[in-house]
Parts: sequence; C-alpha cells; structure tokens
Amino acid sequence: MIVDIINKKRLGEELTYNEIDKFFNAYLDGNIKDYQMSALLMAICINGMTDEEVFALTKVFIDSGEVLDFDGIIDTMVDKHSTGGIGDKTTLVIAPIVASCGVPVVKMSGRGLGYTGGTIDKLESIKGYRTDLTDEEIIAQIKKIGIVVTGQTADLVPMDKVIYALRDVSGTVSSIPLIASSIMSKKIAGGADKILIDIKVGNGALLTTMEEAEELSRLMIEIGKIYQKEVKTIISDMNTPLGYCIGNALEVEEAMDILRGKEINNNLYDLCIELSTTMVSMGKGISKDEALEEVKNSLNKGRAYQKFLELVKAQGGNIEQLEVSDNILTIKADKNGTINKIDALEFGKLSVALGAGRVEKKDKIDFSVGIRLTKSIGDKVKIGDVLAKIYYHKKIDLPNIDTLFEII
Amino acid sequence: MIVDIINKKRLGEELTYNEIDKFFNAYLDGNIKDYQMSALLMAICINGMTDEEVFALTKVFIDSGEVLDFDGIIDTMVDKHSTGGIGDKTTLVIAPIVASCGVPVVKMSGRGLGYTGGTIDKLESIKGYRTDLTDEEIIAQIKKIGIVVTGQTADLVPMDKVIYALRDVSGTVSSIPLIASSIMSKKIAGGADKILIDIKVGNGALLTTMEEAEELSRLMIEIGKIYQKEVKTIISDMNTPLGYCIGNALEVEEAMDILRGKEINNNLYDLCIELSTTMVSMGKGISKDEALEEVKNSLNKGRAYQKFLELVKAQGGNIEQLEVSDNILTIKADKNGTINKIDALEFGKLSVALGAGRVEKKDKIDFSVGIRLTKSIGDKVKIGDVLAKIYYHKKIDLPNIDTLFEII
Repeated sequence: MIVDIINKKRLGEELTYNEIDKFFNAYLDGNIKDYQMSALLMAICINGMTDEEVFALTKVFIDSGEVLDFDGIIDTMVDKHSTGGIGDKTTLVIAPIVASCGVPVVKMSGRGLGYTGGTIDKLESIKGYRTDLTDEEIIAQIKKIGIVVTGQTADLVPMDKVIYALRDVSGTVSSIPLIASSIMSKKIAGGADKILIDIKVGNGALLTTMEEAEELSRLMIEIGKIYQKEVKTIISDMNTPLGYCIGNALEVEEAMDILRGKEINNNLYDLCIELSTTMVSMGKGISKDEALEEVKNSLNKGRAYQKFLELVKAQGGNIEQLEVSDNILTIKADKNGTINKIDALEFGKLSVALGAGRVEKKDKIDFSVGIRLTKSIGDKVKIGDVLAKIYYHKKIDLPNIDTLFEII
Repeated sequence: MIVDIINKKRLGEELTYNEIDKFFNAYLDGNIKDYQMSALLMAICINGMTDEEVFALTKVFIDSGEVLDFDGIIDTMVDKHSTGGIGDKTTLVIAPIVASCGVPVVKMSGRGLGYTGGTIDKLESIKGYRTDLTDEEIIAQIKKIGIVVTGQTADLVPMDKVIYALRDVSGTVSSIPLIASSIMSKKIAGGADKILIDIKVGNGALLTTMEEAEELSRLMIEIGKIYQKEVKTIISDMNTPLGYCIGNALEVEEAMDILRGKEINNNLYDLCIELSTTMVSMGKGISKDEALEEVKNSLNKGRAYQKFLELVKAQGGNIEQLEVSDNILTIKADKNGTINKIDALEFGKLSVALGAGRVEKKDKIDFSVGIRLTKSIGDKVKIGDVLAKIYYHKKIDLPNIDTLFEII
C-alpha cells in the first residue's frame, strides 16, 4: 500500500528499489497524489537515504525519459554542472573556452529560480538566442561548431521536472540524496561520458556547510561509478557573489570581458580557469598543466571569444542587442574602512527584487536590470565611494547598506 | 513566505503561534495546497513539536469552529476518549453506566478507519439509530435523559476534520503532537469540563510503546491545564483484542451483556469498570471507592441497561433489529496447549477483510459480520477446540491460524 511506503520512510527505514520505482512511477502516472509525494519527499529530506536508495532513485529518474547518445559524434563528452549561486555565469565563459580547445560541449542548462540565476535566462537576454533546440538541431550544431548551450529537452528525465517543481513549493529542496539524484540523472541521460560538478557552499547556495558539500560530492562520484562515468567535483565558495555582475544582460557582458582575454583578479576569473582547465584535461586526457596552457592560449588568441560569437550566431542571437537599463542608482560607502564581506544572499534577494530573478516559475524576468559591484573584498574605501551600481526599471526600496556590505 | 515555514520545521526549529495560525488557517481557506500541508505534517511527525507549539496548534484547532457550552444544563461535563483499538466498545458500556449514576454524558464519537473500529459505526448497526443530532437535539436529549451518543457536528473543530483526512492518506497519522492536539481540541470544543483519556498501546493501536503513551499522556494533561480542564489518563493494552467480539453488531451484543449485569473475567469488563468508576468519581467529586460502589449497583440493579435502552430509543434505534450474519466459520485449535497470545492487529486486519471496517473513508461497512472469540489468553485448548467463530457474508481467505493465535 502506498501509505505503507511513506510510513516506512517516516520511520527512517530503507526503501527497496521496487518500492521507489513503484512510488515515483505511480506519481508520474497520476496515481499518487502531490500530497503523498511531498510527504515522502519531506521524510527523505529529514531521514535521508542510503546510497542504495539514491542509486535506485537515480535509475528510476533516468529510466523515466530518453537517454541521449553522442557515440560517433563526440568521442568523449564532458559535461559540467553548478549547483547554483549568485552571479554564476561560469557556463557562459567556460563552454566557449573548452569548445575552442577542441573539446565538444553540449550543455543543457536550466532557468533560475529563487535567488540563483540560470544560464538559459542569461542567454535569452541576447535578442533572438534560441534555447529550445531539438535533438536533431543539437546534433547538427555540435557537428558544425562543436558547441551547444540550450535548455533541457522535454523528454530528458521528465520525472525530475515534476519532482523538482513539487520540491520547490513544498520546502523539500534541501536534501543531498534528492539533489544528487536530480543532477546526476540529468547528466547521465544527457549523454555525458565525464562529468564535472561545481558544488557551491555558502549563504547564497543550497548547501551551507562543507560537510554537506563533501557528502554531495561523495554521493555523485559513487553514482558515476555505477554508470562508468568519471565524476570530478570542485567545492567553491558562495558567500560572496561570483564576479562583479548580477543580472542577466550584465552577466553576459561580464562573461564577454573574460572571453575577450581580460585577466581579472577575482573569484569568477579564477573559477572559470579552474573549471575549463579541468574540463579540457578530462576531455583530452591530458595533464592539468597542459590543459591550462591550452586554455590560456585560447583566451589570449581570441579563440574562446570567437567560439562564443559562433555559438550566439548559430542559435539565432544578435550579440549587438544586449540591453542594460539606463536607470542607475549608486550605493556609496557610509564610512571609511576595508570591505570585509559582500553578502551573496542579500545581493541575490536584491536582484530578485529588481526583477532579474523569479520568485515563482511563472514570473517574467527583466533581462536589463541588475547590479554591478565596483569594489571587491579587501578594497579600502572612503565615505562616498561608489560600491555598486544598481540598474533598475521599477523603483524598489534599497536594503540597508550594512546588510549588503561589511566595512571594517 | 509559506515555504519558509515548512523549511523551518524541516530543520527542526520551533514555529511561533503566528506561523502555526497563519499556515493552518491558510490551508483551511484553500490558500495553502494539500502538498504543502502534508510536507509540514511529515516534518512535524519526524521532528516533533515543543509543548508551546502543541498548545498553539490546539488553540488554532479549537478556534476553527464552534465551542459548545453546557453551562446551566450540565454542572460538570465529563468526557472520555479512547485513542482507538480492536474490539473497543467501551463507550457503549460506560456511557450508560455513568449516566445511570447521575453523571450526564454527551459523547461525540467518530467512525472507524483502518483496523480500529468507531463507536458511531457500532451504534449504526442498530437499525434506525441516528448519529447526526443537531446542537438543539443534543441539548433537548441531555436535559431529558442525561445521555447522548452521537457523531461530531460539522462545526466542531472543522480544521481537525480536514487535517485528519489528509494525515490518513499521507502517512502522517503517528505523531504524538498531532494526536494530542486533535483529541484535546475536540474534547475542549465539545464542552467537556473534565476529560478521561484511554490511551491504547500495542500492535493494534496507533502507539506501540509505553514511552510514547506516557508522552501523549503528559502532553494532554498539560494542554488541559491551559484550559482549566482536569485531564486523567489510563494507559491500556492493545496487543490483544478488547473483549470477545470484533465487528459492529457483535460488539453491541457484547456491550449489552455487560450492561445487563453479567460479570465477565476479561480485559473489556475490567477496563469498563475502571473507566466508568473514574468518570463517576470525576463527575461527582467522590472517591473512586464510592464511585465503584455506584457503578456496581447500577449494573446489578439494571439501571445501566435501562439507560442504554433509553438512549437507543431516544435516538430512534430499534434494539430488536440487530442483525448478525448466519454464515459462520469456525477456527479450531491445530494443537494442544495454552493460548499465549491473541494478536490484535491480525484480528483487526481480518475484521476489515470481512467488511466490518473500512480501508478508505468511502467504503461501506457490513454491520453484521465479525469475529467472536470463544477462548481467552491462558485457556488450555485441545486439537479441534473452537477458538473463534467468523460471521461472514463474502468469502475470504482466512489467515493462517498461527498469525491469529499463539498456542504453547
């Protein structure tokens, strides 16, 4: 009986593969109600899952839809995923770098929800850019230019789509077993041979402690073993926004700065180099030193930027049409001192308030609004110095400066 | 935000009165979805509630509907509640006993669900017996004969009705805070001055350990203090069915045997004497010894039975029309020995299989089927001795005798 399965997990017992398969597929078929699934998800959130249960759930997820296969088209498909953060535009930077180094990139990305942005929204701030490529279009494009960045196709892990939507509205997002099976099922169904996961930790991320991040890392690597996929993970900080810009068109501009070869001394630049070097190393089976050399070369010689322009053009975008609002407010230092903290979560909330992100799935995004930080952690500032520019359309109440910046 | 409240409880934090009030009332108003409420209920089941949270929830429950007041009609209204078990027909016995001792009884009872029976179903096996009295009819009858046993009125804790229905189908029934607030809100809204709770513990009950039963007892006494209601609790065994009969008409017959003054050496008789003595003692403010004297007197002189007949007549029932099925199977001992165990849960399942109980709310009950045990724990039996009679209409597969009886 359905309720017996919920009761079992409520009591912290291990579910069998058959129970997980039956329950989740009955939900997908409409034979289990939302309120039963959300109760089970909450029990999973609190009582956890054994590795065997996570493996079972991942398999049930993968089996719910099509599994892409790039054999004969791509030798080694390397995929990358970030668990999401504030100002995280790494995909926009690293996909062109990696592709320009000769490692094909098929990246299926998601939209932003809550305080974290999504690659697909950022790309849609480029007028005309299509994020709904079909399987056939993906294959044609990867053969032609070696890079695709599009939304997930409808048939890719349909179960994850319905479960994720329910988790989002039922307070059951923060669960390492559920996060691991959701991400890994999509990467595996997406046809990846090797997978690089950027796990964010901090107040602007799903996970807030290193222990959780390490557990998620361990679990994803274990899932990978079952499917003979090499999985590498990077755990990166998300207490501070990534880079200078938060907001869709602004983030595309910032990504283009790096792609044009500008060397920037900040967390975004460092992470992009680290991620793309790792992907090139995984994709080509070369050392990280050799891969770093290729990455730097590609940036310096303009190949990464050219690949980005090829990508935008191939998917119908016009990079000249990237609109940023002309209405600008500035946030100024109210005391002398050194910037000790730039609060990722508070800037995430501010970006959503401006309209750069969604509170609910149905919300429309204003691509042209956002925040550009003009100072970094460690910078000395004086009263009146501009710390950030706010690009807005609708008037909002700015939060107290002390919640955004800590100056000591 | 609604999801923030769910997340808070997922993390095991304490909810404020305002958060509980807002969440539960928004659910009653249709502004929170079933899947959000079931997620919160599951988080409560696993992470528990502080006493303050339980007090808040009880208040929110009570405030959701009307609160009955028998001031000027009944001096001291004593109410009794059982947490439910297999063969539990105590209300049918003790309500007439207590009323016949001069302590008015207004008992609003529920229907059975799962393996536990409900008083209202048992009474409806008496043809014509009405269980839907209005407030006005209740007051008229209590004034006239001092006893009413009816269903809960629609306005009594409407929030409990919707929450209970959801708990039942979402695996969130077993929670001491939720059980305590559900029971106590109904007793307090029902106008009780003093409350006696019979907490069942065993494999045929909601609670299976003494620790849980003691915690539920403590919590209900604490809730009572806030409303200045004296609460007494009895913790009684539910590993063995209560009395000889399971099934609606059969249980009415068994109750009538005791009411007619038959002294039976079993768990049901002892519990009925204990409960009715305690209620009379509470209602009249007399010692338990004095109360016991009155209870015995009432039974011996036929006053309790007369009161029962008055009750049935007043609510439209015809006690002559109590139908028990003529189709009888017997379960016979398959070895010589002593009966060591009669399994409450297994007999509960058997009674539901026969049609005496419901699996789902919409199921119809067959009042005339059930089980009559012909042996008790401790009885010596020989191969072929009849252990139980099964009254049936539809053919079912009888469970293995070893699951029902343990003979050593």
